[in-house]
Order: sequence, then C-alpha cells, then structure tokens
Amino acid sequence: MRVPLTTRDFIDRAELVYGDRVGIVDEPNQPASPLGELTYREVARRARAIAAGLDALGVGEGERVAVISHNSARLLELLYAVPSYGRVLVPVNFRLSSTEFNYIVEHSGASVLLVDPEVEAQVAGISVPHRFLLGEEYESGLLRFDAEPRPWSEPDEDATATINYTSGTTARPKGVQMTHRNEWINATTFGMHMQVSDRDVYMHTLPMFHCNGWGLPYTSAGLGVKQVPIRKIDGAEILRRVEQHGVTLMAGAPAVWNSVLDAAAEWDGPVPGRDQVRIVVAGAPPPSRTIARVEEELGWEFNQIYGLTETAPFITINRPRAEYDHLTPLDRAKALSRAGAPALGTRISTSDSGEVLAQGNTVLASYWENPEATADALDGGWFHTGDGGTIDDEGYLTISDRKKDVIITGGENVSSIEVEDAVFSHPAVAEVAVIGIPDDKWGELVTALVVLAEGASVTEAEIIAHVRTTLAGYKAPKRVEFREAIPRTATGKIQKFKLREAFWTTDRQVN
Amino acid sequence: MRVPLTTRDFIDRAELVYGDRVGIVDEPNQPASPLGELTYREVARRARAIAAGLDALGVGEGERVAVISHNSARLLELLYAVPSYGRVLVPVNFRLSSTEFNYIVEHSGASVLLVDPEVEAQVAGISVPHRFLLGEEYESGLLRFDAEPRPWSEPDEDATATINYTSGTTARPKGVQMTHRNEWINATTFGMHMQVSDRDVYMHTLPMFHCNGWGLPYTSAGLGVKQVPIRKIDGAEILRRVEQHGVTLMAGAPAVWNSVLDAAAEWDGPVPGRDQVRIVVAGAPPPSRTIARVEEELGWEFNQIYGLTETAPFITINRPRAEYDHLTPLDRAKALSRAGAPALGTRISTSDSGEVLAQGNTVLASYWENPEATADALDGGWFHTGDGGTIDDEGYLTISDRKKDVIITGGENVSSIEVEDAVFSHPAVAEVAVIGIPDDKWGELVTALVVLAEGASVTEAEIIAHVRTTLAGYKAPKRVEFREAIPRTATGKIQKFKLREAFWTTDRQVN
Repeated sequence: MRVPLTTRDFIDRAELVYGDRVGIVDEPNQPASPLGELTYREVARRARAIAAGLDALGVGEGERVAVISHNSARLLELLYAVPSYGRVLVPVNFRLSSTEFNYIVEHSGASVLLVDPEVEAQVAGISVPHRFLLGEEYESGLLRFDAEPRPWSEPDEDATATINYTSGTTARPKGVQMTHRNEWINATTFGMHMQVSDRDVYMHTLPMFHCNGWGLPYTSAGLGVKQVPIRKIDGAEILRRVEQHGVTLMAGAPAVWNSVLDAAAEWDGPVPGRDQVRIVVAGAPPPSRTIARVEEELGWEFNQIYGLTETAPFITINRPRAEYDHLTPLDRAKALSRAGAPALGTRISTSDSGEVLAQGNTVLASYWENPEATADALDGGWFHTGDGGTIDDEGYLTISDRKKDVIITGGENVSSIEVEDAVFSHPAVAEVAVIGIPDDKWGELVTALVVLAEGASVTEAEIIAHVRTTLAGYKAPKRVEFREAIPRTATGKIQKFKLREAFWTTDRQVN
Repeated sequence: MRVPLTTRDFIDRAELVYGDRVGIVDEPNQPASPLGELTYREVARRARAIAAGLDALGVGEGERVAVISHNSARLLELLYAVPSYGRVLVPVNFRLSSTEFNYIVEHSGASVLLVDPEVEAQVAGISVPHRFLLGEEYESGLLRFDAEPRPWSEPDEDATATINYTSGTTARPKGVQMTHRNEWINATTFGMHMQVSDRDVYMHTLPMFHCNGWGLPYTSAGLGVKQVPIRKIDGAEILRRVEQHGVTLMAGAPAVWNSVLDAAAEWDGPVPGRDQVRIVVAGAPPPSRTIARVEEELGWEFNQIYGLTETAPFITINRPRAEYDHLTPLDRAKALSRAGAPALGTRISTSDSGEVLAQGNTVLASYWENPEATADALDGGWFHTGDGGTIDDEGYLTISDRKKDVIITGGENVSSIEVEDAVFSHPAVAEVAVIGIPDDKWGELVTALVVLAEGASVTEAEIIAHVRTTLAGYKAPKRVEFREAIPRTATGKIQKFKLREAFWTTDRQVN
C-alpha cells in the first residue's frame, strides 16, 4: 500500500497519541499576545481553525501563504496548518528589507500575508489580497473554530509544502520548493539519527523560517516532543530556559553556542542540562575550540549536521561514535569538527573542482519559477552545494570552504575556515572572519577581521605568530584588522561578500 | 529530488560509514561452516559477490531466489544481496514440511534455492534450476568475488523486494509481497521509534524468515549496529550471548522472554544487560506478568509492537512513556500490555465487528499471484488484520483476540487472551492456551490447556477459582486440561486451530 508521505502525519500523530501533552510553550516576550502553553490537541485544533479560515477566504489548494515572523507558537502552528490542507507556506526571513519582503511576496504570488507586529511597518506598502497581523487580528480574523476545514482533495507527497527563500547572496533570493516527501524524509531520518524521543524537550534556538526550523517542528510533533520557541538568541536566556523547561535538544549555528559558552562562564551554580542536553550544530563549520568547550564546560553532547536550505537541510551527520570515546580531547574535537557521514539514503560526492554534491530525498525538486537556477543547481543529477569539501575514508565530509570564499594567494588555495579556526584558537579572540582582499603581489591577501574578547588585548603580529605555530606560513594572515563586530545573517552565517566589499573594487569583485 | 527508497541504502551506508566495524557475528553452532566475525565492508563485499554469482547464473531482475535457513550470517547477507540488485528474496520458514517447501518454491517460481544443510533431506525432491547448500557449495558455487555485479538497471521503490509466505493457517500459504518502500519505511520508522543507534548490538532472537527479521537487518545495517544471529531459542544461551557480545536490543514473541526469565532465575550472579537491554515483543499479546517480570527480574526495557507479515510488520508501538513512570507496577504492566499507538504515518481503525484495520506504507501491495486474497485483505482501502481489538482515547490499540479465536459462550464474546492472562498469573502455570470447544449448552466451552511449571502442582478447581478472582464468571474456564507442552509455530504463535482439532468434529470446525 502506498500512502502519501505528507506533513500532516506529524501533527496527526501528535494529536492522537500525545493530545494531552503540552506541545508548545509560546515565547512570553513578544509584541503579539502570547498563547502560553498549548497541548498538542489544542495545536491540532488551532491548525484546523487556520485551515478552515483559509477555506473561508477562498484560498485554494496550491496557493501560497506567506508569513514573516520571529519564532513563536503562531509561526509553528502555520507549519502544520498550511501544508497539511494542501496550501504552500512561505516562511520569510524577518530580518530582510522592505524591498526584499515585497519581492518575495510578489514572486511567490502569495494570496495571504501574516506578519509579526514587529515588522508591520516594513510591509505596509505590500499589496496582497489578505493580510493579518499575528496577534488579535489573526486570532479573530483568520481562525475559524466553528467550521471543519475541507480536507486536501488529493494528498500528494510530491506537492510543494513550503517555499523558503534563500537569503545572504547578492542576487535576488531564490524560492526553494520543499515537497511533502522532502520534509517527511528529512524529519524522520533526522529523528532517527538523533534518537529523538517523546522524552525530549526541544527549544527552537534557530529561526524557524530557516529550512522550516530544519524540519524539527515535524520531528517534534510526530514524536510528542514539547517545543519551546525562543525569540532572541541570548546565551543567558537560553540557559535559563533550559533549566526552566528541562530542555534536552537544541540546534543552531556556532555563534549561538559561543553566546551560551560566554553566559555559562558567568552562570551562578552548575550549568543546567549537563549530560542531558544534545545540541546539533550547522550553518557554518564550528571551530574545534567551540566543540571542546561545549563538551567540557557545558557537558552537552555535540553533534554536527551539514546541509542547506536546498536540502531540507539534512545531508550529513556527525554524532559522537563509540570510536571517538577513547580519543584525546583534541582528536575528539577534530573528529567532531567534520560535517559528518551521509544520512541514510543520501549520497554525497565532490566534483573535480572540489565542490560538494548531494543526491537524496531531502534535495529540492526545483526553485520556484526559476528553471535556469534549477537546471544549474541540479546539473548532472546532483545538487551542487556551492561549498568546497573533502570526503575521507570513513565517508565523512569535511567542509573546507564555502566555495565562493576560497582564498587564492600566491597560487595556493587557502581554506578561510582553516585559518579562522587557527586564529580563533587564540584566547584573546572572540570572533573572526578571514577573507581574501586584492593584492598585486599575492593575488589575494589572507586577511583576518578580529573581534577581541572583552578585556583582552593582542597585536596583529602576535596573532600571525600564533597561527604560524599550527599552519603553513602561506596560510597565515598577512593582515589583521580589529573590529567591533562581524555582521552575520539571521542564520548565523558571515556574509563574506559584504566584508570584502570594503576592499574590492567593483570590477574585481567575484561572488 | 526523488530517489527511490530501496533496501540497498542500508547496506551501502553500513559499508561507507561503518566499514571497519564488525557487522555480523555468525552463529557458531551450525552444520554449515560458520563465517565468524564479518565487518560491514566484508558483508557488503560478499553481497556483491552473491549478486555477481546470480548474474553469472543468468538470474535476471525480478526473478525469485528462495532460501530455507535457520538464522545465520548467510541468511542475513542474502537480505542485502538479493533485493539490492533487483531480484526478489523468498525467505521460507524452515519448520515447514517437504510438501509446503515444494509448494512455496513452485508457487513463487524461484529459479534459485538456497538450503540450510539441516533441511537438505526435505528439499531433495524439489525441482528448481539452481540449488546450493548454504556452506561450501554456496561459497564456491555461487559467490563470485572476481566480478562486479551488474547494477539494478532501474531501481524502483515499488518493486517487490521479498515474498514472505505466511504460515500457521490451514489453507495454502500466501506470499506476502513486500516492496522496497515497505521495507524502507518499516526499517526507518522502527529505528526512529525505538531510538536504535550505532551504539546498539542487536541479537536476532526471532527467526529471520519471519517478516525478514522484522526488517531489523535493514535498520541495523543502516545505523551501523552489530548483529548477532542465534540459531536456537534457549533462555540460558540468550543470557550468555547478551553478556558475551554486549547485546542491547532484541525482539521476539512472549515465549522467548518466558524462557529467558526461567533461565535468569537460575543464573549465577547478576543478570547481564540490566538497564542496558531493551526488548521488543510482538507475535502474541504478552501476559502482564511477563511484562512485570521482564522489568523487575531482568531490568530490561519492555517494548511492544503490533503487526503482521502483511505489514512488514510495524504498525503500532508501545514504549514506556514518561507518563508511565509514576504508575504502580501493575498499572504500568497494564499500560504496556497494550499493542501500542500507530507508528508515524500509519493509521489504524476497527471495523463494526471489531476487526483491526490498518493503512500505511508498511502494508503489503499484494499477495503473490493471488488477486482474490489481495482484494479481500485490502477491501475498502484498509488492510484487514483478522485480529480483534479496541482503540482507547490515547489512540492505543489493544488486541483482544485473534479474530478467529474469539470464544462465543452463552452468547457472550470472550477474549481468549484475557483468560490466558488470568490463568497465567497463577504461579504454578508455565504455559497456557485457552480455546473454545463445542458444547451443547454453552455453544463453546471456555477451555484452558495448561503446562505446569517444573515441580509445581495445582488442581483444575484451583485454577478456575483463581481466574474468578479477577474475571467475570462467564469468562473463567469451565474445563482445565494439563499438558506436557503446547505446540507453537516457529514465530511463537500458538496454532489454536490445531488445538481445537482434537475437540471439534470436522463439520463444525471454523478457521
């Protein structure tokens, strides 16, 4: 028997098997009235009320519903409500500009726009058939508890469930179409490899618009996991909520864990969650110092996955295997700094130029109304990640660089990540980005932009000398600049093309 | 991107990510030369050699390869080798008769027959193009290490991977066609719900011909789990191997765990695996005394699943939830005695007559060359399990009876399982089967066949009185017979129609 693999399976099981459990603890600090604690029965009931509301508005199957919101219970319930009844959810990065919001709403052809009150002003000029502020307007205007929603006429696992616009490039954002099958396989294989269970409590420390919260809203509902959305990333607040809610599982970019490590250093008493919490890191390869500190200072299990918006995101996973148990802390952190081995059913490879390629059921079907980009990305039947990497004898992928960020200096390829790792291992360094800047002699000059740790001081020469103790001379920065901060995207990625802009003349800039 | 979900994903990942790990520890006590410890690289290499051997024999895609064997590394590797290269494996119950072997080989149209030396005599008369004894003949005659196998020309998730003939009925056995998608979803959702990980060691205490070892060979390979086949079920031997191999996961029928409990009572020193082992029980609803004893006397985690050969088998699961933690031992055992809640993506229901129905991607597509049986089994778009059951408010299924075994006495339906549970709770009882026998006054007379525990003694009246302390009078046996043993199928099920044969006249017997 073939039954379509759809997102509805997850919320259906949550309601049936875990109806009495608290499914979502809403973020208390937000402009819209928080929803408090919702059982999975209430979440499912609200999801049906949303679907019935879309019915009443005349929003048909396949139509797009855009939402711009910080993490909240309402954003979470839309991930269940919209695709499960045959519409397409478009979760938009709340940090974008008015122009970008406008472009995405228009390009996706959304007939409904749901907006966090905090970004209300930026969407004022957008023309869309139906618009609701996430709060009272949404509660009374959209949700229809007095009607049963029309079921999806023909559930189809290859139908589009969500469109996630990728941010952080200089070109127009592209709409990544995730099918129900993509999301189903992503959520279940992630749940399997991470051993998620109904004894877990998951806190959303990554923005839910990003790959639909990596699909974890689906994994969590399907397995009866309590979910705690958090609105702003703040290390101390994360620790407080881990303690308050008994959180056992979190995911996020390295920057999130650095902020937690900083907060833990000043935490009064034992850090909460020791030997209970496992974290999953992705979005950028973490420095091995961060890995070692998470294990030692927090006592949290460190896991890494690799993927992109285009891959739902789950491609590879690196969990602490039994084989790592007897390694020295340094070797162990090194082993864990690899992006990981392919998830079940996923294949990875590298092209002649070292680009990481992937095949699997989490890879997008296409970009929304962008056949050229689709053809490019899926050329030869493999998804082209744009990242550089190597695959070792154990089948583990190591990301050597975002492909576009490889520095070519004196004819040598230098991995900016490797240099960043070396710079970061200096205790005075709080943050670092390494880029190549134009140079007549070297082609590109390895340049480190450094944010110092509070109260620390170090010279350019000391940093260069420190790097030379572990890396080949040609890889060491030729130049070090000290900065107040390094700009990042909402998902924690450093936008290197922006950092380079200050150094490159327009005609030489490459992206 | 759609990539077919095939059984090959599991062995591919085992080889790639866990190539150096011991994947299989072969059963040492067997007529064929045991293979010892095989790494997953060797298992994958042998699987390719088998596929190349089938190429050399001219066995094409879609052709059937039948195997009759006790649990062994060779049976296990065939589950990878045969379907992954596009053929269909037919694992046959080794306890059947010559006539049944002949019927299955002929009905499946197998072009290859692989045979455990122990059943060689019973297959002597079978006509089949290619035949190998699992041992030297198979090693030198089939396996081709000098050639690469032809890849499956068009991997298709809806292609048949295996055909498992159901045993234990009076009619001709039916061939259950399991597709690659059936097996893939069964293995991954089972892995997810049971939190199987690469730190597990799995011992095959159930016969691998049965639902392909419940799909656990696939789950195990995909997650890098070491597998230990065991040939004969013997409680003390199970305990010894748990200790020897650090086993953490096992599955089997209630009778398996009763034999382990008996052995544990005489075990010298602490029972191995306390707080480490989780067991998964199915095949027959376990008595609540068995559940309580497994938790108390062994310290092993008790889990139950429900399913049939026709469902791959995974339909429902009952794991000890946090909600059970504060129950009394009795209530906890009661909660755990339910068959469980639907696995992710599976739906269950009951018909007007109380028959359990199921929908999901683990349900068979069809019976091999048996359109009538297929139409009956899938009538109305639901799979008809033939079992009676109820579904409670938490969505949990409780099997009240194999539908055919409901006893109708004095106009009341009596669940033979409920009565068996009550009889079994008497400490003098080692085994029990409850059946209905023809009776002019009652229609059917509730009758208990009892095997006494070693050295114990009890009267018929005492047993009846004991049952009446917990059950309504009409449910208590009217008659108790003491037996030396109760015949079971290879999968641990009691064949009640056989027990009834002695009591029923031919014209009244129903099946």
